[in-house]
Amino acid sequence: MKVPVSELQRRVFILQDTLQNEGLDGVLLVQRADTLYYSGTAQNIHLYIPSVGRPLVMAYRDVGRAQDETAWEVLPLLGISKIPGFIQGSKLPLPTVLGLELDVLPVNQYERYRKVFPEVHFIDVSPLVRLQRATKSEWELARLAETAQIFPKLLDYAQGILRPGLTEIEFEALLEQKARFLGHEGLIRTRGFGAELHFGVLFSGPRAALPGYFDGFACGQGASIAMPMGASKAVIQEGEPIVLDFGIVVNGYQIDQTRIMALGYLSPELLAAHETALEIEERLRKALIPGRIAGEIYEEIIAWVRDNTPYEQNFMGFGHGRVSFVGHGIGIELDELPTISRGSKEVLVSGMVVAIEPKFVFPGIGSVGIEDTSVVEGAEGARYISLTARNPIIIK
Amino acid sequence: MKVPVSELQRRVFILQDTLQNEGLDGVLLVQRADTLYYSGTAQNIHLYIPSVGRPLVMAYRDVGRAQDETAWEVLPLLGISKIPGFIQGSKLPLPTVLGLELDVLPVNQYERYRKVFPEVHFIDVSPLVRLQRATKSEWELARLAETAQIFPKLLDYAQGILRPGLTEIEFEALLEQKARFLGHEGLIRTRGFGAELHFGVLFSGPRAALPGYFDGFACGQGASIAMPMGASKAVIQEGEPIVLDFGIVVNGYQIDQTRIMALGYLSPELLAAHETALEIEERLRKALIPGRIAGEIYEEIIAWVRDNTPYEQNFMGFGHGRVSFVGHGIGIELDELPTISRGSKEVLVSGMVVAIEPKFVFPGIGSVGIEDTSVVEGAEGARYISLTARNPIIIK
Repeated sequence: MKVPVSELQRRVFILQDTLQNEGLDGVLLVQRADTLYYSGTAQNIHLYIPSVGRPLVMAYRDVGRAQDETAWEVLPLLGISKIPGFIQGSKLPLPTVLGLELDVLPVNQYERYRKVFPEVHFIDVSPLVRLQRATKSEWELARLAETAQIFPKLLDYAQGILRPGLTEIEFEALLEQKARFLGHEGLIRTRGFGAELHFGVLFSGPRAALPGYFDGFACGQGASIAMPMGASKAVIQEGEPIVLDFGIVVNGYQIDQTRIMALGYLSPELLAAHETALEIEERLRKALIPGRIAGEIYEEIIAWVRDNTPYEQNFMGFGHGRVSFVGHGIGIELDELPTISRGSKEVLVSGMVVAIEPKFVFPGIGSVGIEDTSVVEGAEGARYISLTARNPIIIK
Repeated sequence: MKVPVSELQRRVFILQDTLQNEGLDGVLLVQRADTLYYSGTAQNIHLYIPSVGRPLVMAYRDVGRAQDETAWEVLPLLGISKIPGFIQGSKLPLPTVLGLELDVLPVNQYERYRKVFPEVHFIDVSPLVRLQRATKSEWELARLAETAQIFPKLLDYAQGILRPGLTEIEFEALLEQKARFLGHEGLIRTRGFGAELHFGVLFSGPRAALPGYFDGFACGQGASIAMPMGASKAVIQEGEPIVLDFGIVVNGYQIDQTRIMALGYLSPELLAAHETALEIEERLRKALIPGRIAGEIYEEIIAWVRDNTPYEQNFMGFGHGRVSFVGHGIGIELDELPTISRGSKEVLVSGMVVAIEPKFVFPGIGSVGIEDTSVVEGAEGARYISLTARNPIIIK
């Protein structure tokens, strides 16, 4: 599915308005999520967007595919030294102040741009780009709604195949295979340096309470010391909460969602904690109102958990494994803005898409909780894009 | 499986020897493949290795897991401003010349190190680290041999499930699920900026001849414009060569391998081209001799294809989609040194592991070829680590 021309025009128009306000003459984008967003193609390109005028796609490969997919002019790029010439050849002025994605751009590549543009002042444009991308259009919300269709079917399948003797990795592998049959595209794009993720995390029992390198409520044991995240070779036991926390991608747009399953039973204590997580999720959803500040919502939720539940020490991790967020933006990447986190100054806007994920971690026992992708709308709070029922699924 | 202490000591010893020769006082490593290699833990750490003295693991998370996994001292890190104090606290001098991984380190993160070490001269240490990592120890070769065990079982399975009506994505998803049951860890680590990969590429017929953003002989159609690489929703047709080019990872160590399958038959022309690919692979394998220069081997192979086959235009891509390499290093990452590529000055050393992959691309028809992971040994050429039979697998 192509990104409509009108959608690309709107995205570039909004960015150019921002560039003019911020005093930038243009941006040179190279990171795939950003170039896809503004050009409509995921080919290997450099995308120059001047503050005034038409964007220029300079494509390494594949030029023909990029031409088929984008609304903008495509020129074959043989080396970055050609970029200034391409800009001038398109009757655009050379920039004096140029935005780059300095949050992801490797130093060596940056140094090459500095040589090609020796007189230019470079600015990190990633906060502006990420902020724009946080607010989704109707077209993007329709993509996310399509992606969301896969989860209920996947959980139906999960109920049919969960049985004693399966390992975490086996259960995850069967679910990933099914997800791909249902339309999941496989690759979960992330932005953060060192943020690596295969499908998501599926873990159960005490392993679901293990902290690790992953910036989440828990990390799992993983397959090995070299791959210390997510599912492990451990056999899922009766009564262990199984956390299914996956990303699903269709047409490049991701939904992040968590559900709890179990073989046989879950203890009354875990069921009570899960009920509390559902209550927190509803509080979070209702608090996601345009104009509100993300960090203030985070503090309200933390205070509510402290004052109204016995789980203060268990919320979003335990001990030194705790993380200081309860939600994150999502769309083309898993780790988009806004973050509902400690100290976040981000102001919520109608159309922002946020995965909210209150979870409790009980060391030696496991984790329970919930996660749904939602969209900020009006004074009533966010609306769930996720479709699946939220109760734990117990296989008798 | 833990990396043995003696292995870690040897790795650090070799690096320190290089640092002393190159005039570096130490390195500060943050990229997971590198930190795993020198510390034995894949947790989120900063690893300081002085040119003389013991390495220092500064761990964000998880500190306890890092302590269990590494041979080096582990300190909990709360922010990078603490790093100079940790170095001094360990009775090590502060560096004057410090190596960083400038090939992967984002600019913003680099700027933070510059503030923390205002007097320090930074040098890109990635070429030294990558070169050291290219040569595998006996322990690493044993890991790769373990990983290689999975492919024959996976191909046996593939023969059992390939049937008319399967799409490329469905076939790939079934194989990935099986691979994980067999021990594949899922995540394929890559180093290059923008190098994204899920499991590998499985494509058939004309789609296997499509160029794209992937730096390989072909890219495939992919699942969507947003995910334009690898398997697609197209149904595999009789007589189409199916390219199975996958990475498999066990204990963090990857094997890259390609085999050809088909439903019903392959044309005599394609079978002949495949035979030629096998012959080129043998020539390549025999040319991988310690002391030889990678770029010279590349030119010899190109010349041989030009002079002895009708496939000059089809080798390693077609037209503007051609790539200028026939092999690449592999180990913890898919894109390690050496590269058997145009202009490469890399000198082969016994113990280097190289995936060699002669392939032919026929636009509108498809691709055939072979890929095996091999280890450079002596004057007889490299030895295959891959175990699988090399003939095309035709399902009648």
